[in-house]
Amino acid sequence: MGEFELIRRYFQHGLQRREIALGNGDDCALLAPAAGQRLAVSTDMLVEGRHFLSTVDPEALGHKALAVNLSDLAAMGAEPLAFTLALALPRADARWLEGFSRGLLALADAHECVLMGGDTTAGPLNICITVFGQVPQAQALRRDAAVAGDDIWVSGSLGEARLALEVFRGTLHLDTSDFVAARARMERPSPRIALGMALRGIAHAAADISDGLLGDLGHILTASRVGAVLETAWLLDTSLHRTLSAYLSTDEVLSRLYPWVLTGGDDYELVFTAPASGREAVLAAGRQAHVALTRIGRISATPALVMLDPQQQPLPPSTVAQWRGFDHFSSVP
Amino acid sequence: MGEFELIRRYFQHGLQRREIALGNGDDCALLAPAAGQRLAVSTDMLVEGRHFLSTVDPEALGHKALAVNLSDLAAMGAEPLAFTLALALPRADARWLEGFSRGLLALADAHECVLMGGDTTAGPLNICITVFGQVPQAQALRRDAAVAGDDIWVSGSLGEARLALEVFRGTLHLDTSDFVAARARMERPSPRIALGMALRGIAHAAADISDGLLGDLGHILTASRVGAVLETAWLLDTSLHRTLSAYLSTDEVLSRLYPWVLTGGDDYELVFTAPASGREAVLAAGRQAHVALTRIGRISATPALVMLDPQQQPLPPSTVAQWRGFDHFSSVP
Repeated sequence: MGEFELIRRYFQHGLQRREIALGNGDDCALLAPAAGQRLAVSTDMLVEGRHFLSTVDPEALGHKALAVNLSDLAAMGAEPLAFTLALALPRADARWLEGFSRGLLALADAHECVLMGGDTTAGPLNICITVFGQVPQAQALRRDAAVAGDDIWVSGSLGEARLALEVFRGTLHLDTSDFVAARARMERPSPRIALGMALRGIAHAAADISDGLLGDLGHILTASRVGAVLETAWLLDTSLHRTLSAYLSTDEVLSRLYPWVLTGGDDYELVFTAPASGREAVLAAGRQAHVALTRIGRISATPALVMLDPQQQPLPPSTVAQWRGFDHFSSVP
Repeated sequence: MGEFELIRRYFQHGLQRREIALGNGDDCALLAPAAGQRLAVSTDMLVEGRHFLSTVDPEALGHKALAVNLSDLAAMGAEPLAFTLALALPRADARWLEGFSRGLLALADAHECVLMGGDTTAGPLNICITVFGQVPQAQALRRDAAVAGDDIWVSGSLGEARLALEVFRGTLHLDTSDFVAARARMERPSPRIALGMALRGIAHAAADISDGLLGDLGHILTASRVGAVLETAWLLDTSLHRTLSAYLSTDEVLSRLYPWVLTGGDDYELVFTAPASGREAVLAAGRQAHVALTRIGRISATPALVMLDPQQQPLPPSTVAQWRGFDHFSSVP
C-alpha cells in the first residue's frame, strides 16, 4: 500500500468547515480564520513505550492522540478548527490503521475539527499531531494572566489515569468495574473544549493538566510571576480517594492519593484562575459544560507555592518538592 | 537535562514577528495573519534511516528538516511566518542538539520564520515540523490550477541529491569537489521561497519536487484534470549531465540521467505552470529570485503524460511508467 493509498483509505475525512479554504492534497492546507480571531496552534508527539504501550487498542490510541492536542486548545479557550497528522509506522497494518483512524476521526467529528493534511512514512511508531483552533483576540486563556487574589480551580477529577497505570504496573489490583473506569480515564481522556470556551471572559489564566497538577499550575505561577496557597482537604472528597479506600488501609490510601492527584499527570483536566467575584459565573460555566469544578486555593503575590494540610497548617516544603511534575526527559539515560 | 531545560538551552529563538501574537511557553501559540491573507500550513516528518543516515551532520539535518517544510510553502507562493518542532530523541546529546539547533535556527533566521512552539520527548529519533506561511487570498499557487496550453517550468537543477545518494551507496565514484557539490544538494537544499513569492499572479499551478519531477508533476496533472507533453532534450543540458559525462560512457550516462532527473527526488525545486503569454514575467521572476528556470513542456487537455525524445518522437509509455515517483511506503514490508 502506497502513501497516497494509505491516506485515501484510512484518513479521508468528510468533514468540511468554511475556515478551511483548502484541505489535504496540496503542498500546504490553507486556513482562513475569521477577522478579529487568533489562530491557536499546538503540537504533541506520542511515542510507543513512552506515551502508550504496544498493547493499547488502536482505536483508543487514535482518540487519545487527538485528545491530548485538543486539550491544549481547551486550555486557551479556543474552538477547534483543524489538525494535521504526521504518522511514522513500522508497516502499513490494515487492522491497526482501521482502528486508529476510527478513534481519531470520531473524536475529530465530535469537535468539528477537520483533518486537513499530514505526512505518513515508514519508521518506529510515532504520532505527531498539530492542532488549530480560533479564539477571539482578547479572550485567549493565557498562562501569564493569573492575578493575586484569584481563586484556583480544577475541572473533573484527577489521578485516575495514574491509578490505571499502576494497575498495569502491578502495584495495585482493582475489581473489573473500577479498572474499566480508570482505564477509560487513561486511554480515552475527554478534552475540556466546552469548558474552555465557556470560561472566555471569566477565567484569567488556564493550563491543561498533562504533566500533573503541581507541574502545570507551576507553569501558570512562573509565567504570571505569582505564587499560590493550595488547600488539600478537597483531595479527601475525590473519586480517587473513594476508589482507593475500597482496597487499601487509610495510610496506604494517603501515601498514594497525594502524589497521584497532585503529580500523576495524563489527566487532561483544566487548572485555571478566576477572580473571587466571578465564582457564580465559573460555576455556571461548569454546569454549561457538564463538568464538575473544584475550588482548590488562591493566587498569592508572593512567588511561592504553599500547601495547607486539612487542618490548614502549611505542609513542609520538602514534602511538596517531592511531588514534582512528570518530565518526559527526566528518565532519559 | 529536563524537557524545559532542553528547549531553553537549544531552541530559544530570539526572532520576533508581529504576526506571532503569543509564542512558545503556553498551551498553544497564537497566530494573527493579516486581513485578506490565507494561512498556509504544512507538516513533514523525518525518520532516521529513511530520510537521513545516522551519520549525517546534525547541523545539516537541522537545516534540511526545516528546508523541506519551507519548500512546501514556496510551492504555494507563501511567505514563511513560523513553525513548530516536535522532536523525539533517544537521549539528550548536547553535541548533537547544538549542531541541530544551529542549522535549524540559521535557516529559520534567513527566512524570518519563528520557532513558536513544539514538543520534545524520548524515543527513536524523529523530527516533525509544521510550518506556517501567509499568502494573499487569491494568489496561492495551488496544484489544481493548471490549464491546457500552460508552459511547464522547473527551477534550478534536478537529480544531484540522487547523485550524492548513489555515491553513498557506492554505485559511483566522484572526485572530491563534485562530491561536495552533490552532497550539499542532498543535505542542504535551498527552499525556493523567493521564487514562489515572485510567481504570485504569474504562475497557475505549482508543486515542490520532493518525490521526483514525474511524481510531483503528476499531482498537478491529477488535481487539475489535465495532461502534459514533456520535452527531454533539456536533460542533455543539465549540470547532472555534465558531471556524469566526466566519469561515464555516453550509454552509462543516459541510463542514469533520465531516471535520476525525472524521478530522483529530494530536489526541493519547484515545478510550475504558467500561460505562454507570461514567459517574460516568469523569466523576470527567476532573475529576481536568482534561480535558473527551464521550460520543459506544456499542459494538454488530454489527461495523459506524453514524453518526447530529443528528436521529438514520443517515448514508449512503458519507459515512462518505469520512472515512477518515489513512494515513502513502497518499500515497507
